[in-house]
Amino acid sequence: MTSIATFTSVIETLGIIAFAMSGVFAALAKKLDMFGVLVIAFVTSVGGGTVRDMLIGATPVAWLKDTHTLSIILITVVITLLLRKRIGNFQRTLMVFDALGLGLFTVIGIQKGIAYGLSPGVCVALGTITGCFGGVVRDILLNHIPALFHVKELYATTCIAGGTVYFLTTGALGPEAAQVIAASVVSSFRIISYLRKWHLPSL
Amino acid sequence: MTSIATFTSVIETLGIIAFAMSGVFAALAKKLDMFGVLVIAFVTSVGGGTVRDMLIGATPVAWLKDTHTLSIILITVVITLLLRKRIGNFQRTLMVFDALGLGLFTVIGIQKGIAYGLSPGVCVALGTITGCFGGVVRDILLNHIPALFHVKELYATTCIAGGTVYFLTTGALGPEAAQVIAASVVSSFRIISYLRKWHLPSL
Amino acid sequence: MTSIATFTSVIETLGIIAFAMSGVFAALAKKLDMFGVLVIAFVTSVGGGTVRDMLIGATPVAWLKDTHTLSIILITVVITLLLRKRIGNFQRTLMVFDALGLGLFTVIGIQKGIAYGLSPGVCVALGTITGCFGGVVRDILLNHIPALFHVKELYATTCIAGGTVYFLTTGALGPEAAQVIAASVVSSFRIISYLRKWHLPSL
Repeated sequence: MTSIATFTSVIETLGIIAFAMSGVFAALAKKLDMFGVLVIAFVTSVGGGTVRDMLIGATPVAWLKDTHTLSIILITVVITLLLRKRIGNFQRTLMVFDALGLGLFTVIGIQKGIAYGLSPGVCVALGTITGCFGGVVRDILLNHIPALFHVKELYATTCIAGGTVYFLTTGALGPEAAQVIAASVVSSFRIISYLRKWHLPSL
Repeated sequence: MTSIATFTSVIETLGIIAFAMSGVFAALAKKLDMFGVLVIAFVTSVGGGTVRDMLIGATPVAWLKDTHTLSIILITVVITLLLRKRIGNFQRTLMVFDALGLGLFTVIGIQKGIAYGLSPGVCVALGTITGCFGGVVRDILLNHIPALFHVKELYATTCIAGGTVYFLTTGALGPEAAQVIAASVVSSFRIISYLRKWHLPSL
Repeated sequence: MTSIATFTSVIETLGIIAFAMSGVFAALAKKLDMFGVLVIAFVTSVGGGTVRDMLIGATPVAWLKDTHTLSIILITVVITLLLRKRIGNFQRTLMVFDALGLGLFTVIGIQKGIAYGLSPGVCVALGTITGCFGGVVRDILLNHIPALFHVKELYATTCIAGGTVYFLTTGALGPEAAQVIAASVVSSFRIISYLRKWHLPSL
């Protein structure tokens, strides 16, 4: 159990770092100042969980209750700014971290929905929001139409797929196995669709 | 009583459908992908009630507690996408549904404010938010200045008028009659001002 | 004590008025209609406290519980619209009101964080959100990248400085003295940095 908890916590931290780094690069592209870069990194990282917690009333929202998250993001921003030219060459590594974070965040969102007694469809929606809406809030603040809504990449789709797998397997295999499977489905489906350039069909 | 409840529920469903359809057309105009169209339809439909519920702390917000709403919107999106060329010719019908939904959503918002012990002015504000802020969130996500704030149509104004009528009549006639009158004022005032092209005076 | 409470309440009202006036001018610059001007003034004034209250779950959020705030903003909007040519000449006076409001709002946010048992770093973040995020929501609604994130003025920085001073002094001097000192630090640091055109270093 402890090793699973540690493993989860490592993955979650990698996800927070990957999301914060993507926020830093998005903010630099828009020539924001230091404070702006910090806020965008922060919002990209914790925005999805914050929207989820405000919707279900799990307040104070998660990041207010530990300084931990704030500190990890602050350190990530400083290091990313210092090393930004080198990090630019690690887009593929970052994508993998992002995909791992996406899978884990989706499962965390689903668990929270279940804890609040919500129906499976709604839990999948909450998992998707947890994984994807940090990027949506980032894009709103940067005055873009959220990439999630028009780039046709398989991103939210992978969360919905993983969430569906969770509810298909949890009855037979129990919640813990279903969590591992669902997170793996999201992450691997995301990585494969990225590498193979799979897209949503046009309307 | 049951027939009033049924009637209300039919009107509410028509309002949800009309708002979702307007979301689909707005999203298509911005060339969003399938997931984007779905989110925009959803947000247009339930965004106003969601903002209201987060402001007053009525959480989990309404649409999380029934899968019903999610399903109605999903079906509306699919049908609207399939029949979008034909539906484009029914703008006036859609406007009537929208106006009916607007009246009902305003009254629902007022009732919720009263249930939380809030003052009449604040209840009218909550009714207006319930009716109008789905469109505001939609426009933010589509990277427009919200139409509600600059097109000078009588839209929020009709909610404020109906809300005021509610508090002027509820003492003498009781809350149920006041609800019917207020919703009728909003819907008919909206339809008439649309047909006659009434506008707010310029500043 | 009563005179401190009165003093606080006067400063808070000046802050609300200054923020609402800045909202009116921002809305007029984008040619919004009457309803749009009202909403933007309102959001600029109470948006920061609203975001804070939704994050910590202090609901119904503050302005729903007194009609007072709604009325002050409504009167401010009407007067500002009537006298807008004259008021345009008082930018420096408005900046001072804004700076006073900023200091007080920061301290109010910190107090609320402490009342919810949150850690010092998080309380400083909540104070900064209370002081600064009305302007952020205003800019999102007006379809700008929030000025707070890119103009390099010392604005959020002054809230973070004042909040830090609060926690450095509250142990030795008690919370009341620390509040007065922190609010004074924010306001005076803001005014000085504005007059001397101090900026954040470039990235």
